[in-house]
Amino acid sequence: MQRETVARPNRAPTLLNAPRLLAVLKAEGIDAVVATSAENVTYASGYWALSQWIRRGPQIYVLVPAADLFASTIIASTTLLDQIADQADTWVDNVRRYGFFAVDCADGALDAHDARQAELYGLPDDGDPITALVAAIEAAGLARCRIAIDELGLLPGHWEKLAAKLPHATLVPGFQFLRRVRAVKTPEEIARLRRTAHITEASIEAALNIARPGATELDLACAFHGCTVAHAGLPAIGCIGFGKRAAMPNVQPSDTPLCEGDVIRFDVGGRYRHYRADIARIATFGAPDRKTIDYASALHVGVLRALEMIRPGVRAADVFETAVEAVRREGIPHYQRSHVGHGIGLDGYDLPDLTPSSSDVLEEGMVLCVETPYYELGWTGLQVEDMVVIREAGIESLMTTSGALRVVS
Amino acid sequence: MQRETVARPNRAPTLLNAPRLLAVLKAEGIDAVVATSAENVTYASGYWALSQWIRRGPQIYVLVPAADLFASTIIASTTLLDQIADQADTWVDNVRRYGFFAVDCADGALDAHDARQAELYGLPDDGDPITALVAAIEAAGLARCRIAIDELGLLPGHWEKLAAKLPHATLVPGFQFLRRVRAVKTPEEIARLRRTAHITEASIEAALNIARPGATELDLACAFHGCTVAHAGLPAIGCIGFGKRAAMPNVQPSDTPLCEGDVIRFDVGGRYRHYRADIARIATFGAPDRKTIDYASALHVGVLRALEMIRPGVRAADVFETAVEAVRREGIPHYQRSHVGHGIGLDGYDLPDLTPSSSDVLEEGMVLCVETPYYELGWTGLQVEDMVVIREAGIESLMTTSGALRVVS
Repeated sequence: MQRETVARPNRAPTLLNAPRLLAVLKAEGIDAVVATSAENVTYASGYWALSQWIRRGPQIYVLVPAADLFASTIIASTTLLDQIADQADTWVDNVRRYGFFAVDCADGALDAHDARQAELYGLPDDGDPITALVAAIEAAGLARCRIAIDELGLLPGHWEKLAAKLPHATLVPGFQFLRRVRAVKTPEEIARLRRTAHITEASIEAALNIARPGATELDLACAFHGCTVAHAGLPAIGCIGFGKRAAMPNVQPSDTPLCEGDVIRFDVGGRYRHYRADIARIATFGAPDRKTIDYASALHVGVLRALEMIRPGVRAADVFETAVEAVRREGIPHYQRSHVGHGIGLDGYDLPDLTPSSSDVLEEGMVLCVETPYYELGWTGLQVEDMVVIREAGIESLMTTSGALRVVS
Repeated sequence: MQRETVARPNRAPTLLNAPRLLAVLKAEGIDAVVATSAENVTYASGYWALSQWIRRGPQIYVLVPAADLFASTIIASTTLLDQIADQADTWVDNVRRYGFFAVDCADGALDAHDARQAELYGLPDDGDPITALVAAIEAAGLARCRIAIDELGLLPGHWEKLAAKLPHATLVPGFQFLRRVRAVKTPEEIARLRRTAHITEASIEAALNIARPGATELDLACAFHGCTVAHAGLPAIGCIGFGKRAAMPNVQPSDTPLCEGDVIRFDVGGRYRHYRADIARIATFGAPDRKTIDYASALHVGVLRALEMIRPGVRAADVFETAVEAVRREGIPHYQRSHVGHGIGLDGYDLPDLTPSSSDVLEEGMVLCVETPYYELGWTGLQVEDMVVIREAGIESLMTTSGALRVVS
């Protein structure tokens, strides 16, 4: 008889906040959760499946039973099994596969790494992802349980198929539960976020280093991304704009040349080992005018006041209020914003949301982007955005540079 | 009274194959199509909405009525309107927006670029994306028509909401229609695919240039991505593996050092102006052994035989058969594959599929990746993958380098 899964010594999850997941599942009366979107699959299992991250459609799932974390199961296309064997992050050892894919085997003994791959390719073919997931749920004794399914990664029609094949299970949407779990980071996640923040700051410096009259936004973007990839990061956000173009919130680098007096606005961040940065810095090329100095200072103070009050137990909505009020008081009386920041992790917009209507309460271990952008069409855009970790008594900044206006020449 | 849309002089689509779209809609009896996934939104309108491309969730749509292409409408979050005004690719002038976002306006006259942005921000707020889409459909007189909705980009539950709000319309899944349209490229798309292919080839050269004993896969990946971003490309796929690791189909660069005799396998491709490359090349560091020479030659001949037969009217399944048979005859008698290639464009896997069961027939203007990978656990992996355009009488290769085994030292 073929074994249906391959068992290996259990390792511990490093990205997944397992105690928080179990607490959320218990509080909601849920017996298991199924990750389906790229972020949640990597989060739950450590497994990064290439094609799921670069396109829509590939179906990779992770089933995590609340009663036994180590009975978790990855469901993957046969084409993607190699990375389960190769990735040190992947701590889930039970695997189900689906689909035909040809990989040969050399004569003679394989080393442990290749033997593990051969073992995975040798698993029975479950045919399609939903059949494989249903089999995993049944094998885990969960077919009559309450299961939260991350609805965001499923293809249209898959939810209905699952429901039809699991008539005795109760399926509830799981994306928001996983998002809530992801809000409080593990030490490994924080280490990666610190590293991606530092790479992004270094990349801003690299871009400012080539600022000279006639250098284009695209030139600075090349320098920016070049530094990111030189540090084993990958580009994600690269909004870099000069002068009036900096008033566009999503400004994409163009061949616009740098002129004396221009603001240079960066709203940027790469990925490092899948974790995102999102940082904003501003500089002027040559001496800034009075309005730029005053507005930049007001926006910077807005972030500083917010950072001073951030600690566990504080309401996200109060941080919003504090930041906006400070900016208004410090020199932009008409300042308006929809939010002054958000969590960050595998996704660029994790919880909490720093909005006026947020009911989120800050917790230790959250990693936040705190930002006060200001966009004025016909003038320019200014923005300060810092990344910080919430610790017991306040924040630990992940920044090594100041959000104050820089002057380059 | 507020105007509901902003009208501007019509420009022509450059990415969208409009005649083919209209032909597909006519053949299927469909009155309009709604793009919802990132690839289809950019394809249909030229509009590239940052947050839709880097995360799941942001809802951007394009409604394209078959009866009047220039009545097409973009539905976008207010946060993303700036790029509609700034992107030369965006030819759709009717816009609906939803959501609060604060952008101020300087005193005095705005230039045309900023005035267009102000105009977009000044549109009425439709509240949420589905309400905005329904309003666009009603305004276009399509509320009782047959509408194909690209189901891949909608959030769960949105299809049902749309159906409830459009009780007299017939909604049918539209993703496959748009995928079929996208299969035949416009001249602008081909120009971008040529450029991204050349950038990727140059990046492979840059990586091979630093091959020396002890250089790691990550070192080569840094050189590879560094060259891509220096040419204004962005990384997408970067599978670079040495020796036995090259047997992993999705090998991700590690700190494994290069050794004499190692195969170096690249399955790589960046993006250039949103268009993807997917190219495979192989080299050995130092002299290859007999098996490597023979197998690499067989795989290369497989691609060459396939390329020789590719022309309009040929069946994709026959290309599969030809390539696999050639590889078997030329030296890998046990060769097996699930496919020998696929289309490429905004997505890495466009139609046609070069599979044994494909019913696709090749057409002029398709851009194909033709590939014959071979993975042998415990030995290595070898792969040749070329990008070509199908022309009237055969192929135009987008390659400037050969797929033959290289030797570097």
